[in-house]
Amino acid sequence: RKNGEILSGQYGTNLLLLGVAMMLAIQGEPAVREEHLLAFVTCLMILQLIWMLWYMLVRDRQKNTRTEKDVHATTCWIRGGLTLLAVLSLIMDAFRIGYYIGYQSCVSAVLGVYPVIHATHTITQVHFLWFHIKDVIQSFETFERFGVIHAVFTNLLLWCNGVMSEAEHFLNNHKSRLFALGYENLTIMHTEPDCNCTTSTCSLFSRSLFYLYPFNVEYHIFVSAMLFVMWKNIGRTIDLSSNKKRLATKIQGLHIGPILGLLALAGTIGVMVVYVTNIEESFQTHNSAISMFYIYGIAMLAFMCCAGSLGLLIYRADHMPPDTSKNPSRQLDTELLCGSSIGSWLMSWCSIVAVVGANSNPPFRWTNLVYSLLVVLEKYTQNLFIVESLYRQQEDGEREDPELPAPPEIFSVTSSLAPPYNGIINQAYETPDRICVSLENEEEESRQVYRCPRKPSEVSLSVRNEVKQPLNIKSKVLKNIAVFLIMSNISLWILPAFGCRPQYDNGLEQDTFGYSTWTTILNFAIPLNLFYRIHSVASLFEVFRRV
Amino acid sequence: RKNGEILSGQYGTNLLLLGVAMMLAIQGEPAVREEHLLAFVTCLMILQLIWMLWYMLVRDRQKNTRTEKDVHATTCWIRGGLTLLAVLSLIMDAFRIGYYIGYQSCVSAVLGVYPVIHATHTITQVHFLWFHIKDVIQSFETFERFGVIHAVFTNLLLWCNGVMSEAEHFLNNHKSRLFALGYENLTIMHTEPDCNCTTSTCSLFSRSLFYLYPFNVEYHIFVSAMLFVMWKNIGRTIDLSSNKKRLATKIQGLHIGPILGLLALAGTIGVMVVYVTNIEESFQTHNSAISMFYIYGIAMLAFMCCAGSLGLLIYRADHMPPDTSKNPSRQLDTELLCGSSIGSWLMSWCSIVAVVGANSNPPFRWTNLVYSLLVVLEKYTQNLFIVESLYRQQEDGEREDPELPAPPEIFSVTSSLAPPYNGIINQAYETPDRICVSLENEEEESRQVYRCPRKPSEVSLSVRNEVKQPLNIKSKVLKNIAVFLIMSNISLWILPAFGCRPQYDNGLEQDTFGYSTWTTILNFAIPLNLFYRIHSVASLFEVFRRV
Repeated sequence: RKNGEILSGQYGTNLLLLGVAMMLAIQGEPAVREEHLLAFVTCLMILQLIWMLWYMLVRDRQKNTRTEKDVHATTCWIRGGLTLLAVLSLIMDAFRIGYYIGYQSCVSAVLGVYPVIHATHTITQVHFLWFHIKDVIQSFETFERFGVIHAVFTNLLLWCNGVMSEAEHFLNNHKSRLFALGYENLTIMHTEPDCNCTTSTCSLFSRSLFYLYPFNVEYHIFVSAMLFVMWKNIGRTIDLSSNKKRLATKIQGLHIGPILGLLALAGTIGVMVVYVTNIEESFQTHNSAISMFYIYGIAMLAFMCCAGSLGLLIYRADHMPPDTSKNPSRQLDTELLCGSSIGSWLMSWCSIVAVVGANSNPPFRWTNLVYSLLVVLEKYTQNLFIVESLYRQQEDGEREDPELPAPPEIFSVTSSLAPPYNGIINQAYETPDRICVSLENEEEESRQVYRCPRKPSEVSLSVRNEVKQPLNIKSKVLKNIAVFLIMSNISLWILPAFGCRPQYDNGLEQDTFGYSTWTTILNFAIPLNLFYRIHSVASLFEVFRRV
Repeated sequence: RKNGEILSGQYGTNLLLLGVAMMLAIQGEPAVREEHLLAFVTCLMILQLIWMLWYMLVRDRQKNTRTEKDVHATTCWIRGGLTLLAVLSLIMDAFRIGYYIGYQSCVSAVLGVYPVIHATHTITQVHFLWFHIKDVIQSFETFERFGVIHAVFTNLLLWCNGVMSEAEHFLNNHKSRLFALGYENLTIMHTEPDCNCTTSTCSLFSRSLFYLYPFNVEYHIFVSAMLFVMWKNIGRTIDLSSNKKRLATKIQGLHIGPILGLLALAGTIGVMVVYVTNIEESFQTHNSAISMFYIYGIAMLAFMCCAGSLGLLIYRADHMPPDTSKNPSRQLDTELLCGSSIGSWLMSWCSIVAVVGANSNPPFRWTNLVYSLLVVLEKYTQNLFIVESLYRQQEDGEREDPELPAPPEIFSVTSSLAPPYNGIINQAYETPDRICVSLENEEEESRQVYRCPRKPSEVSLSVRNEVKQPLNIKSKVLKNIAVFLIMSNISLWILPAFGCRPQYDNGLEQDTFGYSTWTTILNFAIPLNLFYRIHSVASLFEVFRRV
């Protein structure tokens, strides 16, 4: 099994690296052009399509044999969100096709084939996500490992491609702003084709594309994370006793969190509009727009730090045993959260070094310092809060019981698969007393507290007793915190995704690090930061449902 | 526990990122100078020194209470190798001090303090590695977590610093070569101080430094990997039954491997000398030196691929159950191996893209393509071979028994701690029959085969029967393969570490990617590749001892 992992993992890594090498080459000499990259990506997508169709066909034929499912793998609201993002990606494909038709006479045919294949790929993949992402594959292991990892890295490559196009767009924007402010020794790359557009909507299409890119980019990275969990699950044996579903979330007592969150969202949109309109004006408004951005950011981040710390304090106050059941999905979530923080931390520390060492003294120098320090602190507390929440055992005495077959979720397409105990031979579940012995042994080995499964009679009693219990005060506070943090993170995603990138505009860091180093840092850090924000929204939603 | 991990892990990451930000700033504006970075690193080293001294003092006082040890954490030959590297680092510090004394009047005092602290740090750290690296910390967990992670990231930062100095040195060399070949529009950064040296040995010191850098760099990255394992072990409960030591390795039947390996080493040194002397000559010898390098590389890599594949075939031929015992050290080894391959894979794929898309046609164009493809393939098979070897259960019927308290290793300083069964309460060990039950349960859950511990009487019998058995033919072949691969990896480490970097010299990739992109890629990829080679030597040595 380990060997299959390494074999397929290395294959996927090399696929991605070849793609990245082509992307880097596009930036340099025109020997490698965008068409080549798109042709390569199209081939990969076709391969993935064939594999997905084959997989769905095989599963369809084996309908009578049951496949095991990992219910932790995804939730229906994540899939719903992804479907929304996929629809936006489809609109983007439509725009691309329209653009191609306009310039048909002078651009490569690959630019027309790519969006068609991408649209087919998106539709099939969403179908796959809804019906197969939770599968725990046990047959043809090595072959299917290759299929899944191919899908993971194809999506990652599509993400890289989207990130690159976005970065290029922002860089050109930045250059044209500098040009408008009087710097004239810059060459702006023109990406327009050589011929005239035959329809009247070409420039509309190409301008609209950049508003859709952020969604497309998040779609691909999210799908690849989900497929990665599926890959980790291959050959795993699911322990049904920890494979529980949760009841619907209660939402009483939610006032302060949503109100503050909505305020933050509204403020963000205001700031964004003011920033984008003012940044291209005179030098004076340029500076005041940047100052405004930092002051607004400081206020937001301070609130978020407080909320996170309050949540941690509440957790300190009541001790719960940690939940140590195996869950690749949660493990990945934690790693991605900490890993993607690195981008924005690096950016912040660079800003701090730049501010401290700067020779010039623009009005936003010290607000930039405070802002950067708060970014570091806020990510620190937020990560701790999320990890602490995800690794706590749920208070199932008050909420639900793992041994009780849960009612099917409302709106869940998988509800037809609800009674999960037929046809699977799971020795661990069939011999609860022996588990109990083994758990006691393990307990002494790993110093962690496990509970033995209760008898069904106890269970139904306790469930009946607690149904009417209201949420206690701690859960209420935690829920409010989670909602506030969700909305704040959305706000902080919107700002850089739609054009507020003061790191490009303020000039402080650029003076210290030099133009090319700083651009490289930003091209690495901003996409990671965007992913961090959207990923923490997903994790916080999970926290919201758990507390 | 999870929380402590995240808390300290994030602290360490931010420490490193601040250091990296300073390094990046040094390359740009002179507002941040090397002195600032060195002062920061010196502070970190002093902090680590204080923590190590405190730790050793506390352990010393608690001599009567036993601390648990993780015998997988390191082996005495790794510690021996590290001591050697540390001695070379000390020589480097001596050179640095000498250099400082020469230029005392015009350089910052930090340049004198840094080597003194670094030398103290190195000596204390080596002492720490010999006597405490295997400790499994159970008390003061959060505080000691911070101490260990601080040590990990201080060493990583020292690694980064070394890598940066090396890269700068190579870049300057490269520029002066280009200058010699007629390109004149390049500015070479002069790092000499403004005053004259008061002793006669300054230039000797500064030139010798660069031959010692490769060793210093590997020393720090290795130490930080070992400390990381110690950090992962904090709060863990060691299962004594898997905590076995191995007997001394048999070395009969070793002929072909060492001979081929020595040939490779000798050839490498020859190639290196020819390359370094010819590369600065005329355009003609320049090109022929590069061609020679590629042809030699192709021959080496082809042999290594064959050796790796042969090893894998032998493993395919006999089926053994995988060894699934928990072992953070092995886990980390695997991840580092695959992770550090990425650097050289990226470089190879870039070369491939450049060769395919190139407009010029130098004599080494297609040998470069074959060489790059072989680099990818060779890492692929070698990683598979190493992982397969490390995750196989040892044939302990023939070699040793896990339940038998192993005799102390010869030359091991920890041999005084040999009888490990006193004073540790390990329930799992004391109730072997209950483990047996729990293992049977787990076996059904995870489909892996465990063996129940045998009774002591059986054990001693089987040991007595097998002592005289010679190595079988498969083990002999595998041992030869391992030795050959070790020596080949050393060769491939020597070449880039001491100046053979055709990626700088051949110009193909630089034309395609542009000067700054390609330099960035190399600055990222070459240090990773160097680390990969030296790390795979360590892993292969482990393989050699196991088969």
